[in-house]
Order: sequence, then structure tokens, then C-alpha cells
Amino acid sequence: MPRLHAPAPLLLDRLRTLLGPQGFVTDPDLVTPWLTDWRDRYRGETLALLAPSSTAQVAEVVRLAAEARVALVPQGGNTGTVGGATPPADGSALLLSLRRMNRIRSISAEDNAVIAEAGVILSDLHDAAAAIGRRFPLSLAAKGSATVGGLVSTNAGGTQVLRFGPMRALVLGVEAVLPDGSRFEGLATLRKDNRGYDLRQLLTGAEGTLGVVTAAALRLVPAVAARAVAWVGVPDPRAALALLRRLEERTGEAVESFELVPADALALVLRNIGGARAPLADPCPWNVLVEAIGSTGGPDPRDALEQALAAAIEDGLVVDATIAANEAQAEALWALRESISEAEKIDGPSLKHDISVPVSEMPAFLERERERIEARYPGSRIIAFGHLGDGNIHFNLLPPENASRRAWIAEHGAAASALVHDRVAAAGGSLSAEHGIGQAKLDEFARLTDPVRLHALRAIKQAFDPLGIMNPGKLVPLASDDEDQ
Amino acid sequence: MPRLHAPAPLLLDRLRTLLGPQGFVTDPDLVTPWLTDWRDRYRGETLALLAPSSTAQVAEVVRLAAEARVALVPQGGNTGTVGGATPPADGSALLLSLRRMNRIRSISAEDNAVIAEAGVILSDLHDAAAAIGRRFPLSLAAKGSATVGGLVSTNAGGTQVLRFGPMRALVLGVEAVLPDGSRFEGLATLRKDNRGYDLRQLLTGAEGTLGVVTAAALRLVPAVAARAVAWVGVPDPRAALALLRRLEERTGEAVESFELVPADALALVLRNIGGARAPLADPCPWNVLVEAIGSTGGPDPRDALEQALAAAIEDGLVVDATIAANEAQAEALWALRESISEAEKIDGPSLKHDISVPVSEMPAFLERERERIEARYPGSRIIAFGHLGDGNIHFNLLPPENASRRAWIAEHGAAASALVHDRVAAAGGSLSAEHGIGQAKLDEFARLTDPVRLHALRAIKQAFDPLGIMNPGKLVPLASDDEDQ
Repeated sequence: MPRLHAPAPLLLDRLRTLLGPQGFVTDPDLVTPWLTDWRDRYRGETLALLAPSSTAQVAEVVRLAAEARVALVPQGGNTGTVGGATPPADGSALLLSLRRMNRIRSISAEDNAVIAEAGVILSDLHDAAAAIGRRFPLSLAAKGSATVGGLVSTNAGGTQVLRFGPMRALVLGVEAVLPDGSRFEGLATLRKDNRGYDLRQLLTGAEGTLGVVTAAALRLVPAVAARAVAWVGVPDPRAALALLRRLEERTGEAVESFELVPADALALVLRNIGGARAPLADPCPWNVLVEAIGSTGGPDPRDALEQALAAAIEDGLVVDATIAANEAQAEALWALRESISEAEKIDGPSLKHDISVPVSEMPAFLERERERIEARYPGSRIIAFGHLGDGNIHFNLLPPENASRRAWIAEHGAAASALVHDRVAAAGGSLSAEHGIGQAKLDEFARLTDPVRLHALRAIKQAFDPLGIMNPGKLVPLASDDEDQ
Repeated sequence: MPRLHAPAPLLLDRLRTLLGPQGFVTDPDLVTPWLTDWRDRYRGETLALLAPSSTAQVAEVVRLAAEARVALVPQGGNTGTVGGATPPADGSALLLSLRRMNRIRSISAEDNAVIAEAGVILSDLHDAAAAIGRRFPLSLAAKGSATVGGLVSTNAGGTQVLRFGPMRALVLGVEAVLPDGSRFEGLATLRKDNRGYDLRQLLTGAEGTLGVVTAAALRLVPAVAARAVAWVGVPDPRAALALLRRLEERTGEAVESFELVPADALALVLRNIGGARAPLADPCPWNVLVEAIGSTGGPDPRDALEQALAAAIEDGLVVDATIAANEAQAEALWALRESISEAEKIDGPSLKHDISVPVSEMPAFLERERERIEARYPGSRIIAFGHLGDGNIHFNLLPPENASRRAWIAEHGAAASALVHDRVAAAGGSLSAEHGIGQAKLDEFARLTDPVRLHALRAIKQAFDPLGIMNPGKLVPLASDDEDQ
């Protein structure tokens, strides 16, 4: 790939003129917060934060950057966990924020669809859907900051993937500016469209390396008429999975969330998060948060869940369970699940792994690999929680209590993560189930991915972005003889 | 692109040795049936039909073809409608049938997944899923011939897209041989995997132009505990759509099929298909076939459907309705819907359009454009039927009764289709909702697609298949200055 240049004064002048004072930001107080990733692992620099307010402006920014061979780093809510939206530390790239493009262009109950610009915040999207009696069935803990553009570009997952799939399954169309500044107009809310390779799907999850997503057409579903939320104590993950399959068969796939929470993750939350209360009388080694949804005029999902859980207790699949009696209790149960990351963060640094294996293999994987890792690093603890029904667990390693965590991670982190990833690869799994590759996992991705796949990824990158200006150093491991930071 | 060569005797010898007598077929009786498309619009020639029995054999076939710069045309059940699997008439390509690769490699109720080779026939896949208490929720009229590889490569749709999406939404993984003979190993049954661009999605719907799909990992869902099938007479498509949204809200999205059938399509079936009987006492101008699904232990979907239809009759959305009292009646109602294409075929040639527009716009589109086309071509009739809930209608034009249909189509077909496609484009729709581009729609696709999209498609094709050996002349309109057949 050709060499990139640092942004020259002439380019910066042009961009300042194009974007105006609100769209061309250099005030350190306004720029600095966006130069660090959410987990505080990467720090970048940039000469300017560009914040265009329209697709036309984005197209002109990209055109100018391509002409000058200057790198761009697209950014949404900056809630990613792999450093995918953090610019490089050498200040060679310009930060391209989509947050000012935050209009909902159209929304239709008849179409069950919404067209939202990249900067629309997820919780605002939820509200807009609710206002027309619909919902957008994807949610995650960062919903107050995460944006549509970031959700699309990272193919975000979250706690409702079980029924409705990840972002990829909800994207009906995409509008994007490609790396040469051309506009890809793929925004129609068509349910079916077989005109050539699916560019929407290619841009979804591309982490801004193939272009800048400026808007997306997204699927909506009917609003929830009633929901039942339960906290269920189970003896082990195997019982949890058996419970899930049983609930799916008996509730017509009304189960939308099925989140696994081990005793130690719950203990972290109870210790570190104010107001958190234990949901069951006695702690269980493993827990599941279940949400089932009911439709208008349909049976109460509470009844179905109650009956199924009672039967499961008799069969020994379930130790104890509580069903939320009202919305406040339901929210409190959800808060326990959604506070795990925050509680971990307060506890101190940990080594995180966002892995997937085939669903049926996850219980054995958890048991086997937890033992293996804890034996290899005495005193360390594995906290494994998350989306069991998707085969996607956050498999996090807490360093030994008596060590300085930061020092331990600096010394052992790379080797420990490599061991986890090796085990995942051996099980036919993925080292990035939902968080993406970004910069954090680039080396491990390159190490563990077969050459055919890598070759295909590089060929696509080269086909779309021959100058290499779009978010260089993210997602696609470059060939070793290529030149790129 | 570099020029391709005709298959030389040396290459044919090598392929014969590689594949053996069962895999290297030149007997005209065995080859000829596969040289014509299902609609009998294209006739191809080939020096040999290659039928490898393993992925390793496919890889070696592709490697040899790439070395010799000979074109390959992958083929499954040959039930496509756009000539995508028909080789060129000049005999320059070899036909690559995947039908001998017909093993189900693994199937798991715990994973809700199956790994099937490209040649597995859809109805066999249905049976395999049923045998473990699961189902594969995609079906279409050609299920007795259509194969997994073809379904993946064309991103097939069918009558259950409403709830579960097209093939694309059911593909968990793909194994493919890329145009250089390398093997892409993407078969894991992972529910979530964010490792770079989604190559599975890129190969899905690529019509064999980026490689040969040799196997797929597919999603299964719980078996149907009960189903309710109704034939519903409605005054117009607008009422049909309102009925759909109401049913979705009241049945928890248990509605899996919602097929629109106009009076003339039903009349064609009653006239041309033996044993077909009118479902309602009096003919209705428009009809809908509805299927709703119930889960184990859940309420009977019949009750919900009955109540909803009774209310809809009171509100004037529905004129008359009948609910199948048993499976035999349900099958009979479905046979009416699935016989429309066959009844049309018996009636004589027609001009077919497989279009989509945003769902909410389809009722107005149907009314407006039917009138426009019939006025433009006096005596012609539009028969528009299909997947209203997906915004996907088969908008077919029957030439005037007093004309020779074949002659009329030869004279007016291209202009009439162009008019239909123009109207679809003006409505922001797609000229290929589910059948793909193949060779039949290549020119119209090129005419109506914006240059940015075309450029991207060509760049992807070039990146994967720089020699242009994979199914040339299909799907991707080449730039006018490119050389190809």
C-alpha cells in the first residue's frame, strides 16, 4: 500500500472551511475525551476532530483525505472495547466523528422499519420505536452512548441476539461514503433484495475500514405487550443450556435473553455496585437471567415461565428461581447483569476474552478451560459470564489477589490470552464473538487465522481502499511485507 | 480480465482421471437435462459435466481450471429462474455439479444446527431436521430438487422469509473453494463471530461467481407443535397488509407465511391443476394464505387466528375466510399457492418480474402499476402474487389472449419488462427480490444500478476471481471495455 501522509496545513484549512467551527474541533477540552478508548487501554492523538453534519460533508471530507492520502478514523459513541475507534498515537490520522449526524430520517410502523443516521444514540432509537408502538430489538449496557453507526460497523451483539440476531440481522440497508469519497446509496427498507453481492453485509462489521457508514435502515418488531424476567439458580452451565432448549420449545421462542452469571460475577456486583441486592436467598454456583416476551392478546409469558421453571426444579435442572413481580423488580434483575463489566472495572484491571464456541460445547469448554487456566496461573480466577444461548461468553481472567494486577497483566497477560485463544481455536471457536478485532486483537487474529481467510480479507480491503486511508491498523492484519503502522 | 480458453484435451484427461467415470460425465443422455434452465429460456453446451464427490476433488477441479484458464459453471438442483446455472452456448465452460456431495455431515438439536454438503436436497434437509425434533425454516416450491449449495448461492427466499428471513439469515457458516482452488474453511456453527469481513455473507447470494460453496452450516429452529393454515378473502392488498400487522401484534410473530393471491392467479390454478378446488364459496378479488405456528404447551394457534379473523371480518378487513380443519386441508390450501407458477407455465409463456418495494408501498404500487401496464399494453393482464409481508411480489404479465404469446413477448417483452423495472426503481425497489441476477437480468441490472454499486461489485469480483473463471457472464455486469465471452 502507498504511504500515507500527515495532515498538512492546507488540508486542515480546507476542512475548517468545509465544516465550520462546530464541525472542525481542535480545542483540547473537546477533543481529548475522544482520544482514549472506553477501557482506557489506548491513547491517540489527532490534529483535529472532524464532525460533519451531513452525508455530503462526510463525502467531501473523505474525498479531501483521499486526495491528500491522510488517514481517517471514524468514531461513534466511542464505547467499543478493542480500540477500533481510537486514532494512532502519532497524530497522523484525523478523527471523524459521526455524532452530529443524529437525525431519524423516517420511521414507519407499517414497514416495521426506521432509517437513522449514524450518530443516533441507541436509547434514542429505542424511544423513537416505542413512540410508534414498535421496538428495536437490540440492546447493550452502553445503550446511552453507543450510536447506530458504531453498532452497524462493529456488528454489535448484546443481550437479545438469541431471538433476533446481532446487528447484521437487523440491518435492512446502509448508506455509506466509500474510501474514494463516493456515496453508496443502499438505504431502502427492502426486506428482500438479491442484486449482487450484499454490500450492506460487507459494511456491517467492517469497523470503518471499507468506508464510513452514515445512515442505516433498520428492522423494527412489534412492541412488547408483556415481559417476564426471572433469575434462576442452576447447578452448572450444562443444566442452564438444557433449561434454555426446554424453554424455547415450550414458549414458541419467546425467550429473548438467556444470560449466564456465575456466583463470583454476582458477588463482584453485590460488592461494588451501590444498591445491588442478592436475588436468591442462597447463592447458587451459576445463575441465569431469563427474559420471555408475550404478545398482545396472547398468554402471559409469566405463566409459561413459572410452569416451566417449576417443572425444571422438579427435574433438578434448576435449584431456585425468582420471577420479577413488576417492572421495577425486572429492572433490578437486569441491572445485576448489566453491572458486571462496571463491577469488574471497579475491582481492578482484568484480562478480557470475548469468545464463542458452538453452543453445545460451551458448558464443557467452561469447565475444562477454567480449570486449566486457573491451574496454569495459580491464584488467578476466571469469571465467565454472558450469552450462553449464543455460545458467546466473556471469559475474563482476574489476576491473583496478592499481585499488583497491572503488573501481573503486563508480565503474563499476553501469554495467558494466547493460551485462552489457543483453546478457543482448538474448539473451533472465535476469539472475537461480538467485540470485533479493532487494534486490540489484531495480532492474535493474524496468528490464529488461516491464510485463505486472511488473504480474502486483504483482497477486499485492497479492492475498496487501495490507498489505505480508512481506519488503518484496525481489523485487517496487513501482510508482513506491506507498509503500514 | 484475461481471456479464457476452451477446455483442452489435456485438461479433460486430467479431470477424467481425477473424478473417475461417475464424476466425469459426457454421455449426452446424462448431460443434456442439465444444459437448460428450469424455465427453458437458455440452452448451454459443455464438453463435460464434472461431478466431484468431495471438497478435495472440487478444490482440485478448480485449481486445474484456473491453471488452464477455463470457465466453470457451478450447478445444484438447476431450479433457478434466471439462467444462473446454465453454461454458455459456445461450450467454452465446464459444468460443475455439486449433486454428488449430498451428505449431512452433522446435525445437533443441542446446537440447533446442521452441517450439510452442497448437494443435499432441501426436502431431505427438512426430513433430517424433523428426525431430531427440529426444523429448517425455509421452504419453496422446488424443495424436491433445490440443493443447499444452490439455496446458499442464490440467497433463496420462499414462503417463510417473513419470520426467519431468507437463506442469508440461516447460514451460520460456509465451506467453499475459492477461484484459485484454495479452501475457505468457514463451517463452524458459531452464532456470533466478529472476525473481519463476513465472508459467509459475501459467498451467500454470489451465484457461484466468487467460488464454489461445498457445504454450509445452517440454523435450525424448534419443530412445529401445531400450525393453523387459513385462506382469507380480502377486498384489496391494503386490507391484506393491515391484516398482517394486526396478526403479528396479536400472535407474537407466530405468523410465518402470508402469501397474497389475486383472483386470476387462483383461477389459473383451478383451471390448470388437477384436483384443485376453490377454497371459498364466492371468489374474492384478493386472497391471502396465512400460516401461524404454535409451540409445545402453548396455546393453539388456530384459536388465535380464528379470533383475529373474526374481528377482522367485523372491521371489514376480511370478506370471508376458511381455516384448515386438519393437515390434509392445510396441505390442499398450500398446494393452491405453490401451484401458481406451474399453472402459469401450463397456460403459456408469460413475462415474469420478481420485484420488491418497501412493504408499506406495495399495495399502492400494485394498484397503480397494474393499471399503468395494462393500459400501455391493451389486452395484457398483470398477475401479481407472492410474499406481501416481505414486500416481494411476482409481478407477471400475461400477453393479450388473441396474440401468440411467444411472438408477443419477442416483440414487446424487453420494453414491457423495462417499463416494470423503471417503475420499481422509481419506487426505490429491487428488480430482483429473490431470484437473483444470473444471466436473465444482467442487462437490466446494469442499466438501473448506480455506478458506485456496480464499481464495488466489480472490485469484489476482481479481488476474488482475477482470472474470471467462476461462472462468467452471471451476476456481475462487466465494464463495457472488459473482455469476456
